[in-house]
Amino acid sequence: MSGNSFGTIFRITTWGESHGPAVGVVVDGCPAGLRLSEKDIQKELDRRRTGRSRVTTARKEADLAVIHSGIFKGKTTGAPISILVKNRDADSSSYEKNRTLFRPGHADFTYHEKYGIRDYRGGGRSSGRETVGRVAGGAIAKKFLALEGLEIFGYTTQIHDIKMGSFHRKEIERNDVRCPDKEAAKQMVDRILHFKKKGESVGGIIEVRAKGVPAGLGEPAFDKLDADLAKALMSIGAVKGVEIGAGFQAAGLLGSQNNDSFVPEGAQHQTTNNAGGILGGISSGADIVIRAAVKPTASISLSQWTVDLKGKKKEIRVEGRHDPCICPRIVPVAESMVAIVLADHWLRNRAARL
Amino acid sequence: MSGNSFGTIFRITTWGESHGPAVGVVVDGCPAGLRLSEKDIQKELDRRRTGRSRVTTARKEADLAVIHSGIFKGKTTGAPISILVKNRDADSSSYEKNRTLFRPGHADFTYHEKYGIRDYRGGGRSSGRETVGRVAGGAIAKKFLALEGLEIFGYTTQIHDIKMGSFHRKEIERNDVRCPDKEAAKQMVDRILHFKKKGESVGGIIEVRAKGVPAGLGEPAFDKLDADLAKALMSIGAVKGVEIGAGFQAAGLLGSQNNDSFVPEGAQHQTTNNAGGILGGISSGADIVIRAAVKPTASISLSQWTVDLKGKKKEIRVEGRHDPCICPRIVPVAESMVAIVLADHWLRNRAARL
Amino acid sequence: MSGNSFGTIFRITTWGESHGPAVGVVVDGCPAGLRLSEKDIQKELDRRRTGRSRVTTARKEADLAVIHSGIFKGKTTGAPISILVKNRDADSSSYEKNRTLFRPGHADFTYHEKYGIRDYRGGGRSSGRETVGRVAGGAIAKKFLALEGLEIFGYTTQIHDIKMGSFHRKEIERNDVRCPDKEAAKQMVDRILHFKKKGESVGGIIEVRAKGVPAGLGEPAFDKLDADLAKALMSIGAVKGVEIGAGFQAAGLLGSQNNDSFVPEGAQHQTTNNAGGILGGISSGADIVIRAAVKPTASISLSQWTVDLKGKKKEIRVEGRHDPCICPRIVPVAESMVAIVLADHWLRNRAARL
Amino acid sequence: MSGNSFGTIFRITTWGESHGPAVGVVVDGCPAGLRLSEKDIQKELDRRRTGRSRVTTARKEADLAVIHSGIFKGKTTGAPISILVKNRDADSSSYEKNRTLFRPGHADFTYHEKYGIRDYRGGGRSSGRETVGRVAGGAIAKKFLALEGLEIFGYTTQIHDIKMGSFHRKEIERNDVRCPDKEAAKQMVDRILHFKKKGESVGGIIEVRAKGVPAGLGEPAFDKLDADLAKALMSIGAVKGVEIGAGFQAAGLLGSQNNDSFVPEGAQHQTTNNAGGILGGISSGADIVIRAAVKPTASISLSQWTVDLKGKKKEIRVEGRHDPCICPRIVPVAESMVAIVLADHWLRNRAARL
Repeated sequence: MSGNSFGTIFRITTWGESHGPAVGVVVDGCPAGLRLSEKDIQKELDRRRTGRSRVTTARKEADLAVIHSGIFKGKTTGAPISILVKNRDADSSSYEKNRTLFRPGHADFTYHEKYGIRDYRGGGRSSGRETVGRVAGGAIAKKFLALEGLEIFGYTTQIHDIKMGSFHRKEIERNDVRCPDKEAAKQMVDRILHFKKKGESVGGIIEVRAKGVPAGLGEPAFDKLDADLAKALMSIGAVKGVEIGAGFQAAGLLGSQNNDSFVPEGAQHQTTNNAGGILGGISSGADIVIRAAVKPTASISLSQWTVDLKGKKKEIRVEGRHDPCICPRIVPVAESMVAIVLADHWLRNRAARL
Repeated sequence: MSGNSFGTIFRITTWGESHGPAVGVVVDGCPAGLRLSEKDIQKELDRRRTGRSRVTTARKEADLAVIHSGIFKGKTTGAPISILVKNRDADSSSYEKNRTLFRPGHADFTYHEKYGIRDYRGGGRSSGRETVGRVAGGAIAKKFLALEGLEIFGYTTQIHDIKMGSFHRKEIERNDVRCPDKEAAKQMVDRILHFKKKGESVGGIIEVRAKGVPAGLGEPAFDKLDADLAKALMSIGAVKGVEIGAGFQAAGLLGSQNNDSFVPEGAQHQTTNNAGGILGGISSGADIVIRAAVKPTASISLSQWTVDLKGKKKEIRVEGRHDPCICPRIVPVAESMVAIVLADHWLRNRAARL
Repeated sequence: MSGNSFGTIFRITTWGESHGPAVGVVVDGCPAGLRLSEKDIQKELDRRRTGRSRVTTARKEADLAVIHSGIFKGKTTGAPISILVKNRDADSSSYEKNRTLFRPGHADFTYHEKYGIRDYRGGGRSSGRETVGRVAGGAIAKKFLALEGLEIFGYTTQIHDIKMGSFHRKEIERNDVRCPDKEAAKQMVDRILHFKKKGESVGGIIEVRAKGVPAGLGEPAFDKLDADLAKALMSIGAVKGVEIGAGFQAAGLLGSQNNDSFVPEGAQHQTTNNAGGILGGISSGADIVIRAAVKPTASISLSQWTVDLKGKKKEIRVEGRHDPCICPRIVPVAESMVAIVLADHWLRNRAARL
Repeated sequence: MSGNSFGTIFRITTWGESHGPAVGVVVDGCPAGLRLSEKDIQKELDRRRTGRSRVTTARKEADLAVIHSGIFKGKTTGAPISILVKNRDADSSSYEKNRTLFRPGHADFTYHEKYGIRDYRGGGRSSGRETVGRVAGGAIAKKFLALEGLEIFGYTTQIHDIKMGSFHRKEIERNDVRCPDKEAAKQMVDRILHFKKKGESVGGIIEVRAKGVPAGLGEPAFDKLDADLAKALMSIGAVKGVEIGAGFQAAGLLGSQNNDSFVPEGAQHQTTNNAGGILGGISSGADIVIRAAVKPTASISLSQWTVDLKGKKKEIRVEGRHDPCICPRIVPVAESMVAIVLADHWLRNRAARL
């Protein structure tokens, strides 16, 4: 109830603070019989890891996943899977200085107001480090979905005002911003480094695509597939907007432009995909396409105005190690959230008919 | 689990089909002692009602709310509140003709795939008529929140490519599109009527604002206030995108532009509100501002290509009575969903501290 | 969250007060494609109805079930099923007199303390009339389970100190106490009438048996099948104890006496059934056998001591129309709760394996 | 959904197998500001620990609790509290021999049927070792409730056919069976040792009492306080029956005998407590008294008949280290479950009124 669990049948519960001894996740509801090892988890955690390029934070975490339960002889047993990742490179020193100040754009003020107590070291629970558990859970969801022929991948479509122009899937993991357009990627990296030097951060847009989703996933009314996906992505720290298919563009279209016609081959084939693969909250069989707007990282080293615990005006410089643009690292997190939603609805859908 | 309930403590469960005998809602978890009458519900249902202007469908429903439980001597008792609204003007005749065809942009195909059986009269469960229950539940949430000083109101900011230029709150309920800009409203109405004549429909954007929200609402990780709001709005039929505060604009900003500085007066006062009133998933005390992209109504009377139950190519003309633009009627629905999320988190927040 | 819903996938939400206009239930999560009519519901409601014999209350309710949603052409569609039953014979006059007194054994005092407001007419929400919704929901669960070969039936095994001696299933519905032992049934009826004349009430024990349950229903740890069944039965107003299989008798046994040996035929065949069909919280394929202790009805016409709203000592005589022994009418309610738990776990079990 | 979580606002999720690397729990929803250290957890884990007396198993586990999250400067922060306890003395050798046989009274057969895969080492997930997480979670619930003046304690009232005759609270923790009657305790220990020598096990009854519970905890209809308590206790492995207050005795009483009269002093004072502190599912302010029937441990070293994976008749001797009577060790587990239910309903009750 306190909001640290997600999913109904396939359900993850994450725990841990940025500068505590470890972070982790309990995955409950994974079907029995799935071949699973720590390597499956590690592969995805490595994609999320820091310190891998010039455009991410300098904090270096090996992020070694240890599975503590739920696996026997290399397969899931139906029991909850507990995964723990130790924090090794936490450095709380820079946070002591600002512990009485509320960093603009961060959760410092709101946590203080809500709880009356706040772990100010690295953002505590509100840190992006919480997403380690999401990615570990997502790795399991992906493994399950892959058996069913589903494939989920994400990429950056925009950084600051630079937009992806072409799409080459192989490019995605070859550049530091996970952009499927090689040229745009170069410009994006330059843009990030340009503003990083100035102590700034930049925002962007990422997109996740799910291929091979069968028709029928999603529930009517409130647990529509797109509603659950929207919650899933909006629950990622820096995300300020989510859209499916044509999204906000649909606002400017006419019905005849926006409706995707059905065409004979297999019925789920459509000429266009403005719906983003979801009709009436239920998957249609077309690719699911969803985008998230990512705000510029709140931590910048420029001087900003804020207040302290007593409400007095203060100047603040946020030190510590930060990502100048979080988009590339949000990609695996967003993929994970999409995978968890799809795995959950896959299992929910088993109860739809006699 | 089948997705017809929403909320955790303050929780609504809607039921009913477009052409069934009635639609309704059960509201569970409303605190005891709230003064409540059918008038409170009716007032909001009337705002959602059809047949009130030239830009809505011709279907005419009185939408009379009858409370069947949970009230004693004019006050809530803590027991579930069951509200029923009869369907009186349903006309299923036009749906018989197309009962073997999948209407483009509608849930016909996906419901068929999911359930193997489909109430094709007026869209059945996937009809916008389901939102009657949301608005009835939202009316109760609003009444509760009003006691606490919260106020929630929505309006249309864009229809097709016409955007609101100025904001005059009093204008909102004075025009047929619920736009706070009198001049833009006129153009919007004209635009809708223009395309209505052609058998078309148009999309738009609506915005909801909540004033007087205290700091502290929302839970960490997954049940962030913005995540729950995103799900709430995305669960409304025609919505294809949701954004908070600066939303997708934030993608093009720098950290120093996007961060809202804190200023001394009461600490929650900020110079800007790019965050839309939510930091780290928890309300900051600033206004909550959230927008939804609304697609053009899927029902258009132009000829479209589709397939039938057997996958054969067919031409379809969707008759029946439809809204050429659903934005004005989505406004009270969106307000209701926001109210339900806030009422729920208000009650959840009571457990945050010792 | 306010406790008026039960089940996870197959989920009922009941609403309504004893002397309000109606009571009802919303059943969400029933699989699509189940043949269902009002007759299926009515048959079970009739078994629960009052005024059918000398040992039940004089309140006469036709209890006509009206289905408002979720059915199309005689089959469930996967949409929520809303059922409403009007209250017709409510007589609130006798409650006015005692409205400032707390009836011993009733929820008057605790509702007053919890909510600060109380619908004192007929017990309001705490009335046994709430179980109409359970029985309606249970009727659907039974219909679903019957397709899968499950059969659920209950009976009275003890009234006051008279215990069932023999078991003849056909006898159950032939006598007024639903006892499978004709002779014991006669004595039970006499005993009830004897004490009814004196203004007293009597308690008893009922048992529910489920045959044809496959092995594998139930979840580890907390949602064990027996745990959910215990909650299901204990949530019925007058129930003060629940036991599975050997139950409290097991406390006096040795391991070698209590363990049920497995025997070759089909593996789930066991020589004894002390486990009551559940091992480690999961069904074994043997009959599920569960018992509930039913307290004597709290409403008696003898004079009792109590206090009023101000805490002053008062004498009270509870008038109105009451069941002198609630066991026979609890039987269909208990069957319904067992059916709902089994239907829910049947569907949950679909997610257990790849 | 897979049943490894319990509670709604105060919610625990346990994980881990008997012979895996560790067991643990995530406690979500504990209010911020509670002073908490590993000592608070350890104190309760030590009460549950094995190897402390002649009547428990020889397996020796230090059961050292390590808190990994949710605490800052000695207080809870509102973030989830993750606790891990390593398994150190697991010895899987004796389980290899019987890995193809289903132990009578155990979950071997049902897990096999449900999941198609089974961690047979020490019972895997179905082991009593899972309760480590419950006791750790219960320790936190107790600490929270103690601040509010609640006190929860349990004891053994019966072993085999030896019943407690007198009640001296101080005796409870002084003897090996946790019986409040010194003389009965001696006989109980002798009885257990007598049958232990023979390779047998014995059952019993335990009781938990909660003092200082305010009136008003519990929700109407399904989440009645007694319903949630029944589920809580029945979810403990060896429990086969649960009763509140007079429990099964109430079946033989008359209404005038069973009803507890209210008396003036504070209104919640009653002359008797047949209701066990709960009326209409809501606490009355009287002590909550609940009992659980505990079956004789399924593991006995006598020869038993069973079948193997292929359904063939086989003789089995269950070796390994087992408790000849689990009652004394179930006492802290049962207390923990009661504490978790009360903490959860304490927090839920904060939403009952305006």
